[in-house]
Amino acid sequence: MKGFKFHGINAGIKPDSQKDLGIIFSEKPASMAAVFTKNKVIAAPLILGKDRLKNGVCQAVLVNSGNANCFTGEQGLQDAIESSNIVAKAFEIPEELVMVSSTGVIGLPLPIGNFEKGIPLLIKDIDSGSVDDFAEAILTTDTTKKIIRKECIHKGKVYTIVGIAKGSGMIKPDMATMLAFICTDLNILYSMLQSILQKSCNRSFNRISVDGDTSTNDTVLCLANGMSQAYIEGEDDIIEFQKNLDEVLFSLSKKIVKDGEGATKLVKIIVKGAKSPRDAFMAAQTISNSNLVKTALFGEDPNWGRVVAAAGRSGAEVVMEKIDLLFGDVLIVDKGEWCGKGAEIKANKILKEQEFNIILDLNIGKFEDYFLFCDFSQEYVRINADYRS
Amino acid sequence: MKGFKFHGINAGIKPDSQKDLGIIFSEKPASMAAVFTKNKVIAAPLILGKDRLKNGVCQAVLVNSGNANCFTGEQGLQDAIESSNIVAKAFEIPEELVMVSSTGVIGLPLPIGNFEKGIPLLIKDIDSGSVDDFAEAILTTDTTKKIIRKECIHKGKVYTIVGIAKGSGMIKPDMATMLAFICTDLNILYSMLQSILQKSCNRSFNRISVDGDTSTNDTVLCLANGMSQAYIEGEDDIIEFQKNLDEVLFSLSKKIVKDGEGATKLVKIIVKGAKSPRDAFMAAQTISNSNLVKTALFGEDPNWGRVVAAAGRSGAEVVMEKIDLLFGDVLIVDKGEWCGKGAEIKANKILKEQEFNIILDLNIGKFEDYFLFCDFSQEYVRINADYRS
Repeated sequence: MKGFKFHGINAGIKPDSQKDLGIIFSEKPASMAAVFTKNKVIAAPLILGKDRLKNGVCQAVLVNSGNANCFTGEQGLQDAIESSNIVAKAFEIPEELVMVSSTGVIGLPLPIGNFEKGIPLLIKDIDSGSVDDFAEAILTTDTTKKIIRKECIHKGKVYTIVGIAKGSGMIKPDMATMLAFICTDLNILYSMLQSILQKSCNRSFNRISVDGDTSTNDTVLCLANGMSQAYIEGEDDIIEFQKNLDEVLFSLSKKIVKDGEGATKLVKIIVKGAKSPRDAFMAAQTISNSNLVKTALFGEDPNWGRVVAAAGRSGAEVVMEKIDLLFGDVLIVDKGEWCGKGAEIKANKILKEQEFNIILDLNIGKFEDYFLFCDFSQEYVRINADYRS
Repeated sequence: MKGFKFHGINAGIKPDSQKDLGIIFSEKPASMAAVFTKNKVIAAPLILGKDRLKNGVCQAVLVNSGNANCFTGEQGLQDAIESSNIVAKAFEIPEELVMVSSTGVIGLPLPIGNFEKGIPLLIKDIDSGSVDDFAEAILTTDTTKKIIRKECIHKGKVYTIVGIAKGSGMIKPDMATMLAFICTDLNILYSMLQSILQKSCNRSFNRISVDGDTSTNDTVLCLANGMSQAYIEGEDDIIEFQKNLDEVLFSLSKKIVKDGEGATKLVKIIVKGAKSPRDAFMAAQTISNSNLVKTALFGEDPNWGRVVAAAGRSGAEVVMEKIDLLFGDVLIVDKGEWCGKGAEIKANKILKEQEFNIILDLNIGKFEDYFLFCDFSQEYVRINADYRS
């Protein structure tokens, strides 16, 4: 991918010696698009970021783990601005072209001293850095780095999309939370990029559930520096790029669910035959957030009663006598009637797999939606009950 | 309490020899009020019950545990009617005066043979029966019987309210779910009784959360047979009775939360200073349903970031800089600023107690609401992951 540099180091923000400070730098100012958390409680970097997003241009992104810079008041905002200024000076670019992002402990002041020491080192060695270094530096209690790289060809011209994400619970034990950075050397207007990114997020990061909680720091940032020969103009170009970006974000969101706290299974709930798009969404979301469905899946129990009851309370229109329910390809409820022990034994085999679909057909409309989610184990409770210190 | 009889026996509906069939009988037809689950997927007894509620009169209530008679199709409804007919014949009363209620496994046909054998025995020995026998017969995997008895004096006349409930998860491992039966010898019109019961439910059973799931069988049934000298006429009488009924239902709902699956703590979240009643409700409900809040409480971790983040995503209007948060009497967030480690250490002491309040003051309005809920332990996951067979 042309014109992007990545690096990550340990700057002493985390208690241990893990990497905790990462940078993305584009040789040319890039078109920028971003999607932020809908949570009404937001961290300082998002207050700054929402403001700078208006320009639609970005050249450098500084990300730290170990401290969320959330609930840090006016000082937190000053620290966010200060850290971006240090980056701007070092690269000799306007500070408006710098975005900052934080993830980690809530409520503690940002250790700005570590930034003053760390950023110059980070930038001095940037040419020795890699996407892997950056991906590592943004992790909190994730168990794996999350990187997707896709080569695309547009009208004979090659361009690349690289996506890096962190996150494995909607909120970790006072960690906050899901971040994703998408870089491409495609040439595209930031206004176009924003609407395409929003669509892609709705089909990926907005369709996953680990524990139903959403955080104060969630950010998806996309930079397109236009340094490849490929550029986007008309509708057809947009549709093609949308497809490629969707693929990258969906793969990243899948990695997040797979790395879900204590997760042992990756499940896709597909709700069909809903009366409205909203009904399909509500039913799929409620099922994917149901503790009783999630714990049953952990127990490899084809407990269809819980899936149907969750749909019933979702607010979606549901007619009992019309419901079909499948675990994988096993029909377990047929027009509202249980298919018997035999079907459950077959379904139980499906649930022993690590990845499978659950399909709920409401059979009263033509609308469909889905959610990706994971099961719910004792390990989740252990992780989240542990005292923070 | 005048004119009510209770009994409960084992009729072989449950696999073990526990009591599983209970009866309530009133010597005179009683005014009836009832509140049913809002879930769109409902069990056969509720289909029958909603129809018979229209009469506003009831003399006998048959309740079984071990089988929910849910997802049992047309046959399930026939079985519900058949079992009510057996009761009607035995008592020589019209079948319209009989209500039936079921809780237990979903999807299996009701073993009507056990009802044909069991009901005559149950009714023959009814004079040897007790409230305790009935309370025991309606339990599924509850760990304790749930009975509240209240003596009231109205204009010098004594009347009694007896409430019996079951339920310890919104849905148990394919068990379904919360039932409550309220009997009183007060004299009151069924139309009055219905609106009073509805209000009481909103202040009690609709303000508790064990795991955020709601079931297909939830029912609260209230009978008033008027056999005491106390009767209700005007507004003042209603307000006084409302207070007494509220007390009984609130105590019962508290017992349900205390017996929550794997629960170790009983917590009341109070949201104050909300911009609208709906905002107060949404914030309190979202906090009480948050797995991250519940697991933190299990870990005795005053993780205020999770409480505030849950409020932030609840849909309620939240202004970060105005929020106050208290664990018990310990202020931990003051106008959006963390009160420091000292406050957290104090709060940690509060969280070591078995019962405490969390108070979130949004400080942007005058509306208030609350939820009763429990913490979230590995035990919950163990209970709900166990394979049903």
